[in-house]
Amino acid sequence: MSVHSEIPQPDLSYAMEKARPADYTENGFYGRDIISVRQFNRENLKYIFRVAEEMRSMVERFGSADLLQGKVLANLFYEPSTRTSSSFSAAMQRLGGRVIAINEVVYSSVAKGESLPDTVRTLECYADVIVLRHPEVGAAAIAAHYARKPVINAGDGVGEHPTQALLDLFTIQEELGQIDGLKVAMVGDLKYGRTVHSLTRLLCLYDVDLYFVSPDILRMPAEILEEVKEAGLDYTETSDIHDVIRDVDVLYVTRVQKERFTDLSQYEAVKDCYIVDPELMALAKEKMIVMHPFPRVGEISYAVDDDPRAAYFRQMVNGMYIRMALLAAVLGKA
Amino acid sequence: MSVHSEIPQPDLSYAMEKARPADYTENGFYGRDIISVRQFNRENLKYIFRVAEEMRSMVERFGSADLLQGKVLANLFYEPSTRTSSSFSAAMQRLGGRVIAINEVVYSSVAKGESLPDTVRTLECYADVIVLRHPEVGAAAIAAHYARKPVINAGDGVGEHPTQALLDLFTIQEELGQIDGLKVAMVGDLKYGRTVHSLTRLLCLYDVDLYFVSPDILRMPAEILEEVKEAGLDYTETSDIHDVIRDVDVLYVTRVQKERFTDLSQYEAVKDCYIVDPELMALAKEKMIVMHPFPRVGEISYAVDDDPRAAYFRQMVNGMYIRMALLAAVLGKA
Amino acid sequence: MSVHSEIPQPDLSYAMEKARPADYTENGFYGRDIISVRQFNRENLKYIFRVAEEMRSMVERFGSADLLQGKVLANLFYEPSTRTSSSFSAAMQRLGGRVIAINEVVYSSVAKGESLPDTVRTLECYADVIVLRHPEVGAAAIAAHYARKPVINAGDGVGEHPTQALLDLFTIQEELGQIDGLKVAMVGDLKYGRTVHSLTRLLCLYDVDLYFVSPDILRMPAEILEEVKEAGLDYTETSDIHDVIRDVDVLYVTRVQKERFTDLSQYEAVKDCYIVDPELMALAKEKMIVMHPFPRVGEISYAVDDDPRAAYFRQMVNGMYIRMALLAAVLGKA
Repeated sequence: MSVHSEIPQPDLSYAMEKARPADYTENGFYGRDIISVRQFNRENLKYIFRVAEEMRSMVERFGSADLLQGKVLANLFYEPSTRTSSSFSAAMQRLGGRVIAINEVVYSSVAKGESLPDTVRTLECYADVIVLRHPEVGAAAIAAHYARKPVINAGDGVGEHPTQALLDLFTIQEELGQIDGLKVAMVGDLKYGRTVHSLTRLLCLYDVDLYFVSPDILRMPAEILEEVKEAGLDYTETSDIHDVIRDVDVLYVTRVQKERFTDLSQYEAVKDCYIVDPELMALAKEKMIVMHPFPRVGEISYAVDDDPRAAYFRQMVNGMYIRMALLAAVLGKA
Repeated sequence: MSVHSEIPQPDLSYAMEKARPADYTENGFYGRDIISVRQFNRENLKYIFRVAEEMRSMVERFGSADLLQGKVLANLFYEPSTRTSSSFSAAMQRLGGRVIAINEVVYSSVAKGESLPDTVRTLECYADVIVLRHPEVGAAAIAAHYARKPVINAGDGVGEHPTQALLDLFTIQEELGQIDGLKVAMVGDLKYGRTVHSLTRLLCLYDVDLYFVSPDILRMPAEILEEVKEAGLDYTETSDIHDVIRDVDVLYVTRVQKERFTDLSQYEAVKDCYIVDPELMALAKEKMIVMHPFPRVGEISYAVDDDPRAAYFRQMVNGMYIRMALLAAVLGKA
Repeated sequence: MSVHSEIPQPDLSYAMEKARPADYTENGFYGRDIISVRQFNRENLKYIFRVAEEMRSMVERFGSADLLQGKVLANLFYEPSTRTSSSFSAAMQRLGGRVIAINEVVYSSVAKGESLPDTVRTLECYADVIVLRHPEVGAAAIAAHYARKPVINAGDGVGEHPTQALLDLFTIQEELGQIDGLKVAMVGDLKYGRTVHSLTRLLCLYDVDLYFVSPDILRMPAEILEEVKEAGLDYTETSDIHDVIRDVDVLYVTRVQKERFTDLSQYEAVKDCYIVDPELMALAKEKMIVMHPFPRVGEISYAVDDDPRAAYFRQMVNGMYIRMALLAAVLGKA
């Protein structure tokens, strides 16, 4: 009998069980885990976004607060992610809390390292909240199952990255004043892109028109399209960004990775179709925004950075505010 | 002449010279190094444990204090140890201090890296106290010799790990109300296990019955047994955990490592004899505790975790309080 | 077209453009980058040194202040440098600020990692100031060009390491009371040594006599000697430390690296000529100082460490005060 067979396999039903938005009252996040975008409805999104706006005011005026004084965050990263770990670290510290950074390596042989449950239960001996980044789907749900302190999912493989989806949605609202009524295009790799899947799920809570722009082999998966239909939303699929650029309010760009193509000539044929440059931007509306989860590797030209419609750096700043709001919420201080 | 010949070899007499418990008055740790369990006697253990209990009250009520405001800890780890480094980092930060984390690698060729004395004397230019984890025996004593600021040994190879021994002993007292009069069994690899050696040495200061449970090839070294005899304590050696499980107050479990056996059939024959599971726990007293220094790799079944007698996670929490007490003590704030 | 061709090549003219000392008034560093020693003149050096002295008083009395409360430093290191990163981390934290540590690796293929401009623009979303260590010349100037928040150069390859030069000069003043009128010898590898180049440039602002002591193949580059001449200073070149040891006020020692020699017999012939030991120190003046940027690998014997003229550890402490002064200055709090 292997000892490790005692550790449950990724339990996705756990995240689903958490998906009961009606459970959450205004302060309903206290002591809760943040595992999946399915935990959110319009009500609690509104609440989190309001707290995030307060965080912005506070940071812009004072730099930091002492709301989480005496609280410690264990920032547990099993794979490197400078952007996400820095964002959580800054969020915690700007709230007056402290951070323990743990950069673990996932060993090829499971036997070499400590099990995720033991690591999580160790860290909660020292910390008040755990942020977890892990390469395996379902890792955050397992961690949350074993931990008594709140766990926040900072990305688990091709699974979820809920704080990214929240900051994306928050950015749309902050930049354009509202979400209902908008035309939102997602561009690039829609098949494997974790961020576009999660954002689409959140947008299903609103009244938006969706445009999915991708090479044929990287189209949005059928189950996501099904959810869009069930939510009663209109959507359009196309492979040509020019079909949508004149109309959209939000252009959400992701990277088309060479590695996804078995036939490289196919890659060569499409790669330039998904590059946002000043020429393309000249076709877009005056009031619209370009977003990107970053890192970018050429799909948005540097020349676009100074365009006021380029929202991707403001999007990162919003990430810090959203994470401040979530940390405050799960620790009962929002 | 090699430059490095100037660096003294591990000077174990240094740690011994520190072993003058009578020198320590109540506040006698101010400015001192914490290198070895031999520095402790019943009086100063009582003092450290009382401070650790105050730390617990403070953390449970307020999360943190400002006792070490303005102080900086250099957390210098030459080998990874998430548990120990996180514990010290949380301890310092919950006291209002700040942490600089340094994760150095020991190069195969000494010539490549800076010498330990130079590194330590560099870090004390920026910090007020140094916590050192190093793979080589005696490294902490060398560091303490060169440093003017206090050095705390966080494990030096097969040498000492005094804060682990202190937290183990503190846990016994906290869980069972006292140490004198207890029956304490240590189980597993008693030959190479640094923690059981140090804990045994500390227990020699008390009136306890000791039980050493191990495979024949992993028995407690003769010099430790000699110290136990000199302390006037009774001890029993056995290879069968069932000989002791009904009687003991403390079951201190360590891992039996496959690598220690040259004859693997020997390993296969004994490995299951040292696994603590619910079946074994059913034989134990109602008021007793199971301890483990962690990480575990199968020697305590996950099914035992919910047993109230499983003290190993509480043991980790105690580690933070003990380290808070030591940091406060050597910085003159306890 | 390569995407990365959009990133400008090292723009040294940028650092030069910054070299307008007259622009700086007493508080003229607010919001500025610290890229090059060329940004400094006697006036603003005097200012920074005065602030550094205040930092020393504050740390010696209180340990820390809350001057940078609410401010966050991104400590971005593309190559390891324990001394420099620890010094900046301690400096920020002793001022009440917080630190995000980012240890990035420079990939052999540029395509694998995010571009430096994107990384810097990401980090300034979370932080108020960026400290950058990078193996490539000009990296700091590029970062500063893209960042809206202040960037402090913590070493860019064989380029500049301005905070090292400032702490060196500050140490001379603190130890000897003044800089004008001193005899300063630099010893060892003067050809490749970044620190001796930068320090020489700063010393050109003062009235000093310079002595350059090196093996013939490691002499000070012609362009630096030209700057010394233009500044109207006297200098002497020699290969024998005994020519200068009796006269100098400052002996600034650097390492002679074996790797610099193609003919190893040449290395063997000279290496012992550049070792500072008690025998050599016996020849030196009673009031003089020995400095070294560290790490050392034999060029200063451990036996010299207890000599009161050995200033190299005090030099490191001064590094923290200088970095505190610079952080406070660029954040508008000095």
